Amino acid sequence: MSHALKEKVDARVSGVIAGDVRTSARLMRELDDDVPHARDVLRELHAHTGKAFVVGVTGNPGSGKSTLTDQLIAHWRKAGLTVGVVAIDPTSPFTGGAILGDRVRMQRHASDGGVFIRSLATRGHLGGLSRSTLDVVRVLDAMGKDIILIETVGVGQDEIEVTRAAHTSVVVMVPGLGDDIQAIKAGILEIADVFVVNKADRQGADRSVQDLRSMLELFRPSTASLQGAWADAPRGVAQSFGEDGWQVPILKTVATDGVGVSDVANVIENHRTHLKRCGDWKRRERDRARLEFMEALRERLIVGVLAELDAEQGQFDEILDRIAARKADPYTIADDLVSAKGIP
Amino acid sequence: MSHALKEKVDARVSGVIAGDVRTSARLMRELDDDVPHARDVLRELHAHTGKAFVVGVTGNPGSGKSTLTDQLIAHWRKAGLTVGVVAIDPTSPFTGGAILGDRVRMQRHASDGGVFIRSLATRGHLGGLSRSTLDVVRVLDAMGKDIILIETVGVGQDEIEVTRAAHTSVVVMVPGLGDDIQAIKAGILEIADVFVVNKADRQGADRSVQDLRSMLELFRPSTASLQGAWADAPRGVAQSFGEDGWQVPILKTVATDGVGVSDVANVIENHRTHLKRCGDWKRRERDRARLEFMEALRERLIVGVLAELDAEQGQFDEILDRIAARKADPYTIADDLVSAKGIP
Repeated sequence: MSHALKEKVDARVSGVIAGDVRTSARLMRELDDDVPHARDVLRELHAHTGKAFVVGVTGNPGSGKSTLTDQLIAHWRKAGLTVGVVAIDPTSPFTGGAILGDRVRMQRHASDGGVFIRSLATRGHLGGLSRSTLDVVRVLDAMGKDIILIETVGVGQDEIEVTRAAHTSVVVMVPGLGDDIQAIKAGILEIADVFVVNKADRQGADRSVQDLRSMLELFRPSTASLQGAWADAPRGVAQSFGEDGWQVPILKTVATDGVGVSDVANVIENHRTHLKRCGDWKRRERDRARLEFMEALRERLIVGVLAELDAEQGQFDEILDRIAARKADPYTIADDLVSAKGIP
Repeated sequence: MSHALKEKVDARVSGVIAGDVRTSARLMRELDDDVPHARDVLRELHAHTGKAFVVGVTGNPGSGKSTLTDQLIAHWRKAGLTVGVVAIDPTSPFTGGAILGDRVRMQRHASDGGVFIRSLATRGHLGGLSRSTLDVVRVLDAMGKDIILIETVGVGQDEIEVTRAAHTSVVVMVPGLGDDIQAIKAGILEIADVFVVNKADRQGADRSVQDLRSMLELFRPSTASLQGAWADAPRGVAQSFGEDGWQVPILKTVATDGVGVSDVANVIENHRTHLKRCGDWKRRERDRARLEFMEALRERLIVGVLAELDAEQGQFDEILDRIAARKADPYTIADDLVSAKGIP
């Protein structure tokens, strides 16, 4: 790296660490657009990360998870904490306003310097969603945000993987299961640290809590044994820890009215305490490191190999033509290319 | 490959090409589980693919796309065509039955030898969804299925990418936009070749058609100019082609009653004719080849490099520990590893 470039990178690293909004927003944009050297800034930032508490909030469209997220932001801001938000649910009002809709609920945080919201479009290259999310989380972390909320829809594989990068995963449902139960099949049940049944003033809320409890007992027996205590405590939920791990709480909220929000915040904070106490915090940090490293390695390998292909005029096009014409299969070509590098 | 293994692979290749259900189902399962040598079968199958017409059907949960898919299967079966289905929507009844629900609508095709349905769970490693889908599509293609339907929810990045592997993409919406419009933001608008407003007996169907038309005119002006003609033709839609490309039709259906289903089928078939006529068929085959090759290359590279890491006892763990402890950043470690291979 040239001296001039190094100075530029250093200036931007300092800007992000100082929490400068403009520098940080620009970096996030450039990471998304693969602007050269943006990743060099991220590389330098790595040493300044690892301090934030990362919380995933997932749930189907219409579950009210954006409203809950909004209320959680307000709760933590009142407590003096700074908050970063990564919104990767295309149906969320956080994603920057509807085309025809008028969902401006979140705008109330727009002028609050203690809140930084970044929306990610679910477009781009394969695997781009998780990479972008990891990138943004790292920038928010380096900025010094105390809590980082990742808001996703609970249906896609990428979204679930993304939640694995969080320390604590909150899954928001609504009374009346149906589709929600289907979504649970998709790995949601395994990743949830906290369940919230939102819109609990609707009919069937208690039934949903019971159903969730039954499913937890079925699929995660070790974590579900104390569900009863949780389910029946409407406010000021008492926290209890099993010897073997976390007892997944199921909380009822009416997020639009703020009912139950501080309970959810408390339970999330208790989960952090639990993670730190039982050593799982380190395990989750390691999980995130694994995701980060795999992304970096995958990216670096593919970019390097494609650069070589590109250097040989037309070779990549020729490969695609041969595959499309069924003259060669993609695995054999990939094998030949990679083996030629001496990689086993 | 040993002679015995080669014989085994050959036997399974023959089985799939003959359309044998048991061999094919087993291969799909083994590909998902990364069973050794399953990929060797796929490698050999590649030359036997490229014949099927691949149609993506996407839409939010509750849009009725599963019902429409079910009706399209029935339509094409009546026409004597064989159909393969890849269901990757966790809320779809195709995905093998709900835990609590009772959605058995699709079971009527279960005993039909001309229909093969494969459900994919949205779990597993990063990027696994698109890889698995590509795998299953190739097996169905090699089996000789005339039409392959890929059913996805329209919210995740992976799901949208998966649809790019299709020749024709159908997007199903319901009257009353709201969340649907949000989903459109997420790249859906760019990939749709056909729009269906299902549940068109509900209030607001015409309004939804108009809104969609306006959005198409805004975002894809070159393809939206003839929308009026489409929107106003309730049955037996006449097909017309612009010089520059396909005019995205917007059709109304009531899938539960079968209303409009044959129109949708006709329009999908017309799109195939259009693709073949204008040369875009080849472009889309090439897009699929690109996805396949990138997946194969990524997989081969990462597996090879991780194998080397694994060979050196504990090196991978040590790397993760160093990243998690912020003693090293993932990019620098990836760089060093890859550069050591002589990859630029």
